[in-house]
Amino acid sequence: MSETVQLSLAEVRELSLNVLQRNGYSEAHSEAIADVIVAGQRDDCQSHGLYRLLVCVQTIRHGKVDGHAVPELVDQAASIVRVDARFGNSLLAFQTGLPHFIQKARATGVAAMAINNCFHFSALWPEVEQLATEGLVAMAMTPSHSWVAPAGGTKPVFGTNPIAFAWPRPGKTPFVFDFATSAIARGDIELHRRQGKALPEGWAIDADGNPTTDPVAALKGAMLTFGGHKGSALSAMIELMAGPLIGDMTSAESMDFDAGAGATPCHGELLLAFDPIAFLGDRASEDLQRAENLFEAITNQGARLPSERRYAARAESGVHGVEVPKALYDDVLRLLEPPKA
Amino acid sequence: MSETVQLSLAEVRELSLNVLQRNGYSEAHSEAIADVIVAGQRDDCQSHGLYRLLVCVQTIRHGKVDGHAVPELVDQAASIVRVDARFGNSLLAFQTGLPHFIQKARATGVAAMAINNCFHFSALWPEVEQLATEGLVAMAMTPSHSWVAPAGGTKPVFGTNPIAFAWPRPGKTPFVFDFATSAIARGDIELHRRQGKALPEGWAIDADGNPTTDPVAALKGAMLTFGGHKGSALSAMIELMAGPLIGDMTSAESMDFDAGAGATPCHGELLLAFDPIAFLGDRASEDLQRAENLFEAITNQGARLPSERRYAARAESGVHGVEVPKALYDDVLRLLEPPKA
Repeated sequence: MSETVQLSLAEVRELSLNVLQRNGYSEAHSEAIADVIVAGQRDDCQSHGLYRLLVCVQTIRHGKVDGHAVPELVDQAASIVRVDARFGNSLLAFQTGLPHFIQKARATGVAAMAINNCFHFSALWPEVEQLATEGLVAMAMTPSHSWVAPAGGTKPVFGTNPIAFAWPRPGKTPFVFDFATSAIARGDIELHRRQGKALPEGWAIDADGNPTTDPVAALKGAMLTFGGHKGSALSAMIELMAGPLIGDMTSAESMDFDAGAGATPCHGELLLAFDPIAFLGDRASEDLQRAENLFEAITNQGARLPSERRYAARAESGVHGVEVPKALYDDVLRLLEPPKA
Repeated sequence: MSETVQLSLAEVRELSLNVLQRNGYSEAHSEAIADVIVAGQRDDCQSHGLYRLLVCVQTIRHGKVDGHAVPELVDQAASIVRVDARFGNSLLAFQTGLPHFIQKARATGVAAMAINNCFHFSALWPEVEQLATEGLVAMAMTPSHSWVAPAGGTKPVFGTNPIAFAWPRPGKTPFVFDFATSAIARGDIELHRRQGKALPEGWAIDADGNPTTDPVAALKGAMLTFGGHKGSALSAMIELMAGPLIGDMTSAESMDFDAGAGATPCHGELLLAFDPIAFLGDRASEDLQRAENLFEAITNQGARLPSERRYAARAESGVHGVEVPKALYDDVLRLLEPPKA
């Protein structure tokens, strides 16, 4: 077994704050980023925990992200909040818009928050979960970089284009899902390449558009969406809604903007919130109870709700802290040193 | 080749109106239903064309649907229109709410329309397409009857739960998709049973939860969602948003309500509309043009946009009318006679 380091959640946060501030992120950005790194590590989402500090630092050292950008809030319409992240990280922009977004959702029943010009590295579930803890139903989506071919095609057009959803459950952790519309995460192809392992069928095509299980050929070709033409249609919807509808880049435009730097993608994000009280009035608690019957019909037959694994890890981490691979921990500690010339 | 009958679109409409009015649908309901039957037949969606008249008549003869129900409009919130269909067909309720829904989307930027207590037999694409021709981005979803097992489960909980989306394209037919989150339509299982054909793998499980290609075993067991756990998560989202969020039945509740009659499902429908002008202001036409670049990146590599087949059929029908199987035409004509005791 490989060596690990035991850390409390407070230690994960402290370490994250130190690394981020030492590397040029303002205090406000560092706080917003550290919060989701703690959440990812706490919920055993290794690829969204401390590992992401490496990505944050790489991105700021590339000179791509503005670590001191102050997000600008725009009251776009009665049901639309816009936050211009001004080429900073997305998370401070999200936190900046959040109170206004919630207020609009409660006032009109349905609201959208568009975050523009943001560098985006984080999972969407912490954001929709935060909205659900306010009693709102929430959805979020973003493009990424164009690595994924449309159904029936051979060339990449779409990003991995995640979509997340949360439903409030009174007295319980929300029902939350968050998945890429690509068959698999980009990082999983890279992981197979490094381990010299063949890809499962259905993940990717080579540069000529033929199905491949060779990760090297896949990286030169294109990934596929999940679920065939249906997944491809959803991925197009996410491109459109979290791209042109909010006046921001598609995955192809974002990849051009990156110009080969390999930084965190820069693009927009769209969030939607729905207030059950506005939809249902006095009936809301009765109707939310009927949703519980749906969840029971799933769990009573031994099937899992989407976030159960995360919530179990969260309960465990709250008591015992988290275990981090020693190699990763050492890599993160090195980020506290000045970069080599 | 089987015998067919050639009909103009005006003849399809006339026949539909006659059948519906002769069988107890009010003039207003008949007009609303005939419009989508013409649209389905015109676009070569055989299962949503004249065939649906058989379903409409069966449902009203079962005494389930109120053919004279007058939908009640409720101004629920600044961004929410509610239409109580009062146990009539969904389509007149949709048309009743539509102008108010569009007005709210334009006023606040984002709006929802909840249709309650409606019998729902129609595809969702005509509705989202109609919203897109008004320049709005649109989404629609409904539950159905609980025939579909959740990922990792063995017992049906979800309906076939369709989701539809439309994006306006200036000077062109909108980008539209409309698909069931089940691996396949319920009717396809039935079709395989009648033809004695094995099902493809991945469509269904038997009553013990084991994968099956036997359509009879599948009808006693459960259908599966498309796309594994991701499709299952989406199906749950549709249950929640077009069910409890709008105070209406889940697929399981709708199936209980039907009590074995086999009528068209009765439940709710949720539509969402987004106004690009509200999101983008003066930039809207420039941003809609960037969406065209996305579509070109798909079609230029030989991949199809989701509704291309329908639009091609539509162009053809507009010139030459439609061909209908003689057996179906005769079945429809028989609906003009009084029902046998």
